Amino acid sequence: MTKNNENPLKDHFLYSFLNPESIAVFGASDSFLDNMGAMQLRNIIAGGFPKEKIFPVHLSLDKVQGIKAYKSILDLPEDITPDLAFIILRPGIVPNVMEECGQKGIKRVIITSGGFREVGPDGVKLSQKISEIAKKYDMRFIGPNCLGVYNGWYGYPEKKQANFNTMWIYVTPERGNISIAAHSGTVASHLFWYCKEIGVKIGKSLSIGNEDDIDLVDFLEYFKNDNQTSVIGLYLEEIKRGKEFVKLVKEITPKKPIVAIYAGGTESSTRSIMGHTGSIAGEDKIFEAVFKETGIISTFSIKDFLYYLRTFSHGIIPKGNRLGIISDSGGSAAMMAKAAEIYGLKVPEFSEELKSKLKDFVPSVANIDNPLDLTFQFNQYNLYVKIPKLMMNSGEVDGIVLYAVFGFEEIFDVIKNSGGKSYDKFAITDKMMKGIYLKPIQRLVKKKSIPIFYIGPQGYSNSWVREFIKSDIPIFNLWDMPVKAFSVLARYGEYCRNKS
Amino acid sequence: MTKNNENPLKDHFLYSFLNPESIAVFGASDSFLDNMGAMQLRNIIAGGFPKEKIFPVHLSLDKVQGIKAYKSILDLPEDITPDLAFIILRPGIVPNVMEECGQKGIKRVIITSGGFREVGPDGVKLSQKISEIAKKYDMRFIGPNCLGVYNGWYGYPEKKQANFNTMWIYVTPERGNISIAAHSGTVASHLFWYCKEIGVKIGKSLSIGNEDDIDLVDFLEYFKNDNQTSVIGLYLEEIKRGKEFVKLVKEITPKKPIVAIYAGGTESSTRSIMGHTGSIAGEDKIFEAVFKETGIISTFSIKDFLYYLRTFSHGIIPKGNRLGIISDSGGSAAMMAKAAEIYGLKVPEFSEELKSKLKDFVPSVANIDNPLDLTFQFNQYNLYVKIPKLMMNSGEVDGIVLYAVFGFEEIFDVIKNSGGKSYDKFAITDKMMKGIYLKPIQRLVKKKSIPIFYIGPQGYSNSWVREFIKSDIPIFNLWDMPVKAFSVLARYGEYCRNKS
Repeated sequence: MTKNNENPLKDHFLYSFLNPESIAVFGASDSFLDNMGAMQLRNIIAGGFPKEKIFPVHLSLDKVQGIKAYKSILDLPEDITPDLAFIILRPGIVPNVMEECGQKGIKRVIITSGGFREVGPDGVKLSQKISEIAKKYDMRFIGPNCLGVYNGWYGYPEKKQANFNTMWIYVTPERGNISIAAHSGTVASHLFWYCKEIGVKIGKSLSIGNEDDIDLVDFLEYFKNDNQTSVIGLYLEEIKRGKEFVKLVKEITPKKPIVAIYAGGTESSTRSIMGHTGSIAGEDKIFEAVFKETGIISTFSIKDFLYYLRTFSHGIIPKGNRLGIISDSGGSAAMMAKAAEIYGLKVPEFSEELKSKLKDFVPSVANIDNPLDLTFQFNQYNLYVKIPKLMMNSGEVDGIVLYAVFGFEEIFDVIKNSGGKSYDKFAITDKMMKGIYLKPIQRLVKKKSIPIFYIGPQGYSNSWVREFIKSDIPIFNLWDMPVKAFSVLARYGEYCRNKS
Repeated sequence: MTKNNENPLKDHFLYSFLNPESIAVFGASDSFLDNMGAMQLRNIIAGGFPKEKIFPVHLSLDKVQGIKAYKSILDLPEDITPDLAFIILRPGIVPNVMEECGQKGIKRVIITSGGFREVGPDGVKLSQKISEIAKKYDMRFIGPNCLGVYNGWYGYPEKKQANFNTMWIYVTPERGNISIAAHSGTVASHLFWYCKEIGVKIGKSLSIGNEDDIDLVDFLEYFKNDNQTSVIGLYLEEIKRGKEFVKLVKEITPKKPIVAIYAGGTESSTRSIMGHTGSIAGEDKIFEAVFKETGIISTFSIKDFLYYLRTFSHGIIPKGNRLGIISDSGGSAAMMAKAAEIYGLKVPEFSEELKSKLKDFVPSVANIDNPLDLTFQFNQYNLYVKIPKLMMNSGEVDGIVLYAVFGFEEIFDVIKNSGGKSYDKFAITDKMMKGIYLKPIQRLVKKKSIPIFYIGPQGYSNSWVREFIKSDIPIFNLWDMPVKAFSVLARYGEYCRNKS
C-alpha cells in the first residue's frame, strides 16, 4: 500500500474482481448440501461483504440466505449496477445470463460453471458464445470452469479482517503477502486448511479456470504491481501467451519469487488435464526449460509448493549456501547434514576461533563443530540466542537450522500432573519467551540476511510453536523440509545475484 | 501373541529389558527441569510401572518422586534383586555402579549416560571398563549413550494401556505393530508427537546407543520372532556385525518389511556421527547396495520413514503397480498422475467396459477415465463405495488413491452457524459413516489385497479423519505422500514375489 493508503491498482481492470463493492449472484440457493453456489454465497457473506450490496438472482426464491432475490438481473432498480456478477449455473443458461448482465451494464463477471471446452465440441461452441457476448458489451470475465477468487485484503485497511471469498470451502487462511493463481480450484482453495495449520499466509488466491478471457499473464501483471504481493505461487496446466509470459516473469522473479507446479508432461496427467481445463499440456522438459530460464522455482509436490511459498514470504534471502546446524540431537544433526549435501549445500567445518567461542555456551559432552550437537541443552538462552548469534557474527554460515524447539507450557503441565516440584517462578509465558528468545535474534536475521529455521517436534498445534507462526518466524515440525527450503532460498539468492 | 497369551520370547535375554518386573534407577531426582533422569523416571511411573517395584538409588535423597530411595544398590533388602538397572549418571561413576549392580546380582542394565567412545580416548577406556565388568558378572547391557527403551506392549494383555518408557519426552504413540531400533534417541522418541498425530502406531522403540554389548543384530533377532512386530524401522549410523546383519535381514524382509535411514555417507554427516555415537560411517553406496540386496526400503527423509512404516503397518501388499486415481478435483488428479509416473507406477486408461459401468455413478460433467475426475460429487456413497468397488472388481488396478475426504460434522457446524437450513435428518455421526462408507470396502481391500489411500484436506485433527486413523485405514492430508507410499508398497510387493 502507498503511504496515503490509496491502492495504486485501483484503476486496473482486475481491481474490482478482487474488491467489488456490489455483487450479483446467479445460482445460489439455501440448499447448502447439494448446491455449490449456496456454499459460495455463504462464504461471500461470511467474509464481511455488506449484505445490502449482494443481489441474488433466482427464478423461484424471493429470498436467498435471508437476502432479497430478483427473478432477473434486469429486475434490479435502474440506479443499481453491481460491480461484479458471479455465475454458478448450468452451462447452457450462461450465455443468456451473460447477455442480460451486458444489457444491465455489468462489466465484470466470474463464471464458475463447468461444462465448456473441457467437455468437447459442444462446450467449445458455448465458450465462443460467451466470448462474443463479452466482446459486444465490453465485459471482462474470469473462467469459466473455476472457483473464482479469494482476496484476504478485501476492504483493507478500513475493514480489518474482511475477505472476499467466492470459493466453496469453509475455511480461510491468515492474510499475508503470498498470492496464488491456479488452473485448479482445489489448489486455490482446498489447501487453506493446511495453510492455516502451518502458517502459509495468503493474500490472494485465484482459480483461473479455462482462461477464455482473462488469463495468467493478466493476473501476473496485476501481482507484479501489487504491493500486497511479495511471493507468487502458480499451478499450471498450460501457458497460453508463452512469449508474454516469459517476458513478464523475467521481470518479476528478481523482485518477487515465483514458485510453480506444472502438472502436465506425463501420459496420464496430460490425459487428466485434457478433461479438466481442456488444455493440451506440453512436454515436461519444455516447461522445465522455461522455468529455469525465467528463474521460477518449480516442484511437482504440493507440500514443497506450500513450504517454499511460506519460506519466501518471510523475505530473508541468504547470501550464500553455507548451512550451520544446531541440534540437541546427534541423529537429526547427521540427517540434516546429509540432506544438505544432497541438496548441494555446504556444511562447513567451523574455524578454531568459532569453536573456542562456542565452548563457553555448550555442555561439556557436546560435539563442537558443524553440525553442533549440544546433546542435551538445558540453557535455553544459549540455545536460542548466544549460540546462533556467535554463528551469525562469525561470517561462516549463510543460514541456520536449529533443532529442537520445545514448548515449556506443555512440559510444565506434565510435571504438575505428575506431582513434580512446582516451577511457578520459572513459569514464563510463551509471549515472554518470544520477547527473550526470538525478537533480538530476528533483528540480526534481518540485518545480516541470515535466515534461521527452527524445528520443534511437538508439532504445529503446540502453543509455543504457534507463537513462531504468529510472528512469521519459520518453524517446522520435522527436519527434512527446513534443509530443503534453505537450499531453495540459496538457489534463488544466487539467481538474483546473477541478475543484478 | 500365541493363543494362550504366553509370549514365546519370554526366555529371550532381551525380554526383561522390555518387560522388567522390577527396576533400579540410578541418577533420577525430583528436579525435572535440569535432570534428564527425573523426566525418565517420571515416564516409567506414568507408564503404569508398579511403584513398589521401582528402586531409586540416590546418594542424598531419601525419597525420589515419592518413592523410597537407597544410598547404594547394595542397601536393598537381600531378597530383592531388580530385573533391570537403569543408569543415568556422569560417565566416570558408571563403572563403580556397574560393579555394585554385578555384586547385587542384577543381570540387565540400560546405560543412558553419554561420554564414552564418542568423546575420544578417555571415553574408549571407560567403555572397555564397563564391558569387562559386564563380562565378569555375566551381565548384558544396552548403550551407553542412549535413551533406552519404549515398550507399548508392557504388561500385555493383563494391563490394557500400560507401557514401559525410559525415554524422557512426555508423550507416547498409540500402540501398534511397528518396532523401531535407532542409533538416535531422537529418532526413537521425539517422533512420538508426530506419530500420534498421523497415526504411526508403535509397539516398541529402542534407542540402542553405542552398542558396546547388545547390538542391532540382537534386536533384529528379537523383532524377527516377535509376534507384536510386523514392520521394522531402523535408523543407522553404522552396522557392526555386517555379515550377520545381511543374513538375518534377508530372512526377515520377505515377511516383515524393514524401512531404514542411513545417516552417514556425506562429509559433514560422517563428521557429525563420529561425535554422536563415535562410529565411523561408511560410504553411502555401500549401504545402498546392502539395502537393495536385502530388500530394505531406504530413505534419507524422516517424513518418508514414518509414512512408509505406517503404510506397511496396514499390511495390505498390492499385486502390481497399476494405480487407480479417484478425485473430485482435476488439479490434484493431474498431480497425482504425474507423480505416479515419476515414481515408476502405471496409471492405466480404463477399459470401455469399466468406463461404461462407472458412468452410472458419476456426475454428467465428470471426466470418466483414469484419473477419474468427478468434478463435484455430492453422492458420498458413490464416492466411497460404488466407484472404488467397481474399480477393484475390474482387475484393472492394484491400488487406489481417493481424493477428497470431507468431514461433514465440521461442514454442518458451519452451515448451522451461518443460519442455514437445518440438516438434522442428515446428521449422521462419524461412527455411522465409518460403518457405511469404510467397513464394507475395507473387507474388499483385504480380500483383494488392493490398498485404498484416502486423502482429506481438512487435516489430521478433523474428527472424520481421526476415525480413519482409529481404524488403521490409510489417510493423508495432502496428495504427494499417498502416491509415493503406494510406489514403495508396489516395489516391496515385487520384491516379495521375486523371493517366493
